[in-house]
Amino acid sequence: MAGGNGVKTFGLAARDTSGVFSPFEFTRRPTGEEDVRFKVLYCGICHTDLHAARDDLGWTTYPVVPGHEIVGHVTEVGSKVTKFKVGDKVGVGCFVGSCRSCEQCSNNLEPYCPKMIMTYLSIDEDGLPTRGGYSNEMVVNEHFAIVWPNKLPLAGGAPLLCAGCTVYSPMMYYGLSKPGTHLGIVGLGGLGHVGVKFAKAMGLKVTVISTSQNKKEEAINRLGADSFLVSTDSEQMQAAIGTLDGILDTVSAVHPIMPLFGLLKPHAKLIVVGAPNKPLEVHIPPLIMGRKLLGTSAVGGIKETQEVIDFAAKHNITADIELIPVDYVNKAMERLEKGDVRYRFVLDIGNTLVAAPTT
Amino acid sequence: MAGGNGVKTFGLAARDTSGVFSPFEFTRRPTGEEDVRFKVLYCGICHTDLHAARDDLGWTTYPVVPGHEIVGHVTEVGSKVTKFKVGDKVGVGCFVGSCRSCEQCSNNLEPYCPKMIMTYLSIDEDGLPTRGGYSNEMVVNEHFAIVWPNKLPLAGGAPLLCAGCTVYSPMMYYGLSKPGTHLGIVGLGGLGHVGVKFAKAMGLKVTVISTSQNKKEEAINRLGADSFLVSTDSEQMQAAIGTLDGILDTVSAVHPIMPLFGLLKPHAKLIVVGAPNKPLEVHIPPLIMGRKLLGTSAVGGIKETQEVIDFAAKHNITADIELIPVDYVNKAMERLEKGDVRYRFVLDIGNTLVAAPTT
Repeated sequence: MAGGNGVKTFGLAARDTSGVFSPFEFTRRPTGEEDVRFKVLYCGICHTDLHAARDDLGWTTYPVVPGHEIVGHVTEVGSKVTKFKVGDKVGVGCFVGSCRSCEQCSNNLEPYCPKMIMTYLSIDEDGLPTRGGYSNEMVVNEHFAIVWPNKLPLAGGAPLLCAGCTVYSPMMYYGLSKPGTHLGIVGLGGLGHVGVKFAKAMGLKVTVISTSQNKKEEAINRLGADSFLVSTDSEQMQAAIGTLDGILDTVSAVHPIMPLFGLLKPHAKLIVVGAPNKPLEVHIPPLIMGRKLLGTSAVGGIKETQEVIDFAAKHNITADIELIPVDYVNKAMERLEKGDVRYRFVLDIGNTLVAAPTT
Repeated sequence: MAGGNGVKTFGLAARDTSGVFSPFEFTRRPTGEEDVRFKVLYCGICHTDLHAARDDLGWTTYPVVPGHEIVGHVTEVGSKVTKFKVGDKVGVGCFVGSCRSCEQCSNNLEPYCPKMIMTYLSIDEDGLPTRGGYSNEMVVNEHFAIVWPNKLPLAGGAPLLCAGCTVYSPMMYYGLSKPGTHLGIVGLGGLGHVGVKFAKAMGLKVTVISTSQNKKEEAINRLGADSFLVSTDSEQMQAAIGTLDGILDTVSAVHPIMPLFGLLKPHAKLIVVGAPNKPLEVHIPPLIMGRKLLGTSAVGGIKETQEVIDFAAKHNITADIELIPVDYVNKAMERLEKGDVRYRFVLDIGNTLVAAPTT
């Protein structure tokens, strides 16, 4: 266990609402007795990172170092660490702390703990702002670190820590994981495309629902979806009324959801995991007629995140990624904003951060 | 079993969108082999009756004879009837038919059958419009008739067939019926006040949530609620954040629901059983943070409606009613529109319909 002062860390930070990233030096805490320190190798770029960089959500404190789809190699472990040893592969997702004692924590639902500490944009137990995986090193309590299976690729697996968990957790919680369940997945982006992969691995029947025909071939032939529904085609939508057991809506933009409810059987569930920044309009009477519900979900707890990663390793699931050097980050954010990525950017931190800091 | 032509029936109908009721003669089918015929004694006035009379929902066919909280005495039974004999007390709620074979019907969830036949404003199996309990006689397949317990008062019990079932069913379906559960009930009207009674009989902790202080004493001292929360009092609302396991929202008017979500614990449920005729605005991110859901529910199936009525008899639950003669119906609708009733009008059909038809 390292004592004394913190350790100098190097990363990428946005400094103001322009969201432009530039090099940033800061300090991480010394490795505590329950901590693991690791060298970051890859970090996925989640849409939330873009929102945070530009303060779209109204709670960014600058400078902000985003990143919560982080994988790397353990370089140091505290004296009480039991899950890891130096050299192990390790992953960190959306949060790095919680109270460990409330009802939510006791039920392995740390993301819902009122004292949950996010991987970035929270205040850590030491009083300092948390900083994410757009950096060369992380230090985290081992409870919040995921044991990485040897057979799961690091770069392609990294996005599963957030995107994968965000689609897997609601499927389990809302009972949409039984083989044969007919699940609609709205939006084929970072979340949606791994949603299709997990759902197919579980034995579900999957219909991808998208505003345009563009991704049909890819959805069916490459991702393995059973069918594809163009939400702007009223004939297709009409024909699909009352056919789905559940819908996972991954779209972050404000969009009409009543047509989606129409696709559900009675007693079926529409689960929104995208987070539109303006209210959605919900007309209640059609829902009442079928006792339909609108559910939501955040990421899973640590136990479930480990389950996600182990499930992915077992079923050979990775995200489809575009691996980029860190000096591409600003360009990547521009493209991400336009939806121009299939389906997740991953920063090659290990090979490019120190060698070629962003300009 | 009576054969031949239908039997002349006398009732009250609204003839146009004024919603004004006047006497109306029509024909009911002869008593079929699975039918029970009964003399209507009491019929509750549900808010839906008012909507139907004025075509607020856009699907009224005039003349309309509303009423779906109906109790009476059996006067004739078909040859295959097993649940009833002449002289028995009987109740009929919101629907009088369904396909009896689909997935919903097989699960005793007839209200969600695509071929469900409503007690009024549907087309019956004989091709004629269904007509409700604002009439002196009913004929209904025995499957859709409720065996009325001797100890449950007829007039005060009638509203439980719709209002009672509408609050009981979601409490059971959404797991909000366990003793100790802290339930918020929004709106203290026809639905809300029986919601409090059922919830207390189940051993729940009940907080009534209302826009004004007016009904506080009544809610606590007479209905037995544990506490009362004024939704327009920001201090009270602030203090109650994150305290409820569930909310039953019985308000039919459009109203802000995000402050209600704030009152819920993580993983808790807001169940809307009122049916506002315009969309509600749902802001998703605060729901995601607590994995909260917006549920809905219609009335229960026949098996559950029988359970509701038996539960009410066991726990001495009736609705608080104002018993009125039929010639008061138009005045009652005016008062109902203003919310000027505590808490349900019930038409004294048996004593006043034939003797003194409405003018």
